[in-house]
Amino acid sequence: MNTNKPYAVGIDIGGTNTVMGIVDARGSIVAQDSMKTQQYTEIEDYVNELTSKLSTLIEKVGGSDTIKGIGIGAPNGNYYTGNIELAPNLPWKGIVPLANLITAKIGIPVNITNDANAAAIGEMTYGAARGMKNFIMITLGTGVGSGIVIDGNVVYGNDGFAGELGHVIMRREHGRLCGCGRKGCLETYASATGVARTAKEFLQTRTDESLLRKLDPESITSKDVFDAAIQGDKLALEVFDFTGTMLGEAFADFVSFSAPEAIILFGGLTKAGKLIMDPIVKALDENLLKIWKGKIKVVFSELKESDAAVLGASALGWEVK
Amino acid sequence: MNTNKPYAVGIDIGGTNTVMGIVDARGSIVAQDSMKTQQYTEIEDYVNELTSKLSTLIEKVGGSDTIKGIGIGAPNGNYYTGNIELAPNLPWKGIVPLANLITAKIGIPVNITNDANAAAIGEMTYGAARGMKNFIMITLGTGVGSGIVIDGNVVYGNDGFAGELGHVIMRREHGRLCGCGRKGCLETYASATGVARTAKEFLQTRTDESLLRKLDPESITSKDVFDAAIQGDKLALEVFDFTGTMLGEAFADFVSFSAPEAIILFGGLTKAGKLIMDPIVKALDENLLKIWKGKIKVVFSELKESDAAVLGASALGWEVK
Repeated sequence: MNTNKPYAVGIDIGGTNTVMGIVDARGSIVAQDSMKTQQYTEIEDYVNELTSKLSTLIEKVGGSDTIKGIGIGAPNGNYYTGNIELAPNLPWKGIVPLANLITAKIGIPVNITNDANAAAIGEMTYGAARGMKNFIMITLGTGVGSGIVIDGNVVYGNDGFAGELGHVIMRREHGRLCGCGRKGCLETYASATGVARTAKEFLQTRTDESLLRKLDPESITSKDVFDAAIQGDKLALEVFDFTGTMLGEAFADFVSFSAPEAIILFGGLTKAGKLIMDPIVKALDENLLKIWKGKIKVVFSELKESDAAVLGASALGWEVK
Repeated sequence: MNTNKPYAVGIDIGGTNTVMGIVDARGSIVAQDSMKTQQYTEIEDYVNELTSKLSTLIEKVGGSDTIKGIGIGAPNGNYYTGNIELAPNLPWKGIVPLANLITAKIGIPVNITNDANAAAIGEMTYGAARGMKNFIMITLGTGVGSGIVIDGNVVYGNDGFAGELGHVIMRREHGRLCGCGRKGCLETYASATGVARTAKEFLQTRTDESLLRKLDPESITSKDVFDAAIQGDKLALEVFDFTGTMLGEAFADFVSFSAPEAIILFGGLTKAGKLIMDPIVKALDENLLKIWKGKIKVVFSELKESDAAVLGASALGWEVK
């Protein structure tokens, strides 16, 4: 980190909201703002509004000389090209050269990557992965994302899109249909939507009592399952057990790949705490090769969820060259 | 490569034989020798004989000032520690500080890693991966090994043992028992022994004619299956199809991890050529996420099999510090 430039900017672009913040070297957000992503169907309008808001924030902290760089976490953000490429949930189609568009407006270098990679860098810079050189970040939200860190660097691969661990195949027969068009992906089981699908499946194929039977099965959410589980509902508890077991099995294969020191979990599902962590740790240890048994840590993110996206993106801002 | 020191030493330690060679910067083996690994139950005796043979070779090419370093490929060789750790097929039990023992005798720095990682470095230095920064080496022999290269570096992980892709789980139900004690590992299907197991399974569960029915099912080898397949035997052809399909499915998951430019295949099974390559490429493309379809190369090693182990190990010798 360049001490002459005390701040980095983090921008998290989601399908609904764009959140931006100015962050200091200790990970405190000193100024922030947000805007609605979907309101701007033209990328030029979006960039105009974004850079206008950014300039206001930057002036507040002392001007652009105080900013080391801008980091952006965005769906399908490509670190190598600075583009957002074919992101299904964003209003701009095709390939959007976002990094260049912003730098052209505001004169500050921009790094971009996907949100899970940004979360990994954030965790390494400010969170549970401080001091770690080898770890895997797993984001458990609407989908399952991942950021893989090896020797202190995020793995981008040959094309910038490495780390799609939500799409490893966990069920090669009778697998659930995934948004990616294939079947049996980890994401169809271990995301918040996966938890809801599992609950619906259990309710249909079993006959035992459950608090969840009071709800419309089509509208059950992972939050409903959690609420039932903490009241001791057996079926709901088994949904988390199923989900955690699937994750632990998948993690054992990930360890065979990169032998990380730890796997770090982030996102909505981690609110389930022990309900999800206990079966993960059990299944992981049962499925690991002997040399790794009992040696791989699984921990929750240490970043506050509301700040994590901006912090993660800002951490990428420190790395601009 | 240091042009003042024109040679590197490569040593391949196998359960049966140890082969050593002196290699120049273009990958020519200029001198070589071998010895029986199993004859030396005491590591001290083994190191004495090995370094004595090495010294003779080194004198031939102009003395130890001409040697940049020594690279060793050995089962369970740990790059970080220079140790061979708990290798089941070698005569020395426990943890053997081989790199230090050799350097102490001969005064030349030693790097050590497992054989698949050595093969990956060899391929990058002299073979099909020249110029590639991101690729995965898969060795298809008695077992299935792997060496993963990201940003031009072999992935060793937190403990030095990363890259055990022969042990990702391909069948979570009714999987074949693996030598590692778990069930359903890729290695139980896609190794030479896996091919023989598949043939036996097909012969038992099917009734159609096959040249393989003339053989004792217990002694069928992958070579027998190959010989039958090139004569057009339908069952034998389907064994290769099954094997290649399993590999292609596994590779699609590997691509989700590190997005390599290519997957490079090495080892006995690659002699099957198109019989194994065609189903691999087909299954890989069918199972890849859209962004990678048609973009990941699968190629055979370009190193002569008899030289590859020594070349791969020697490539590690260039990297000593």
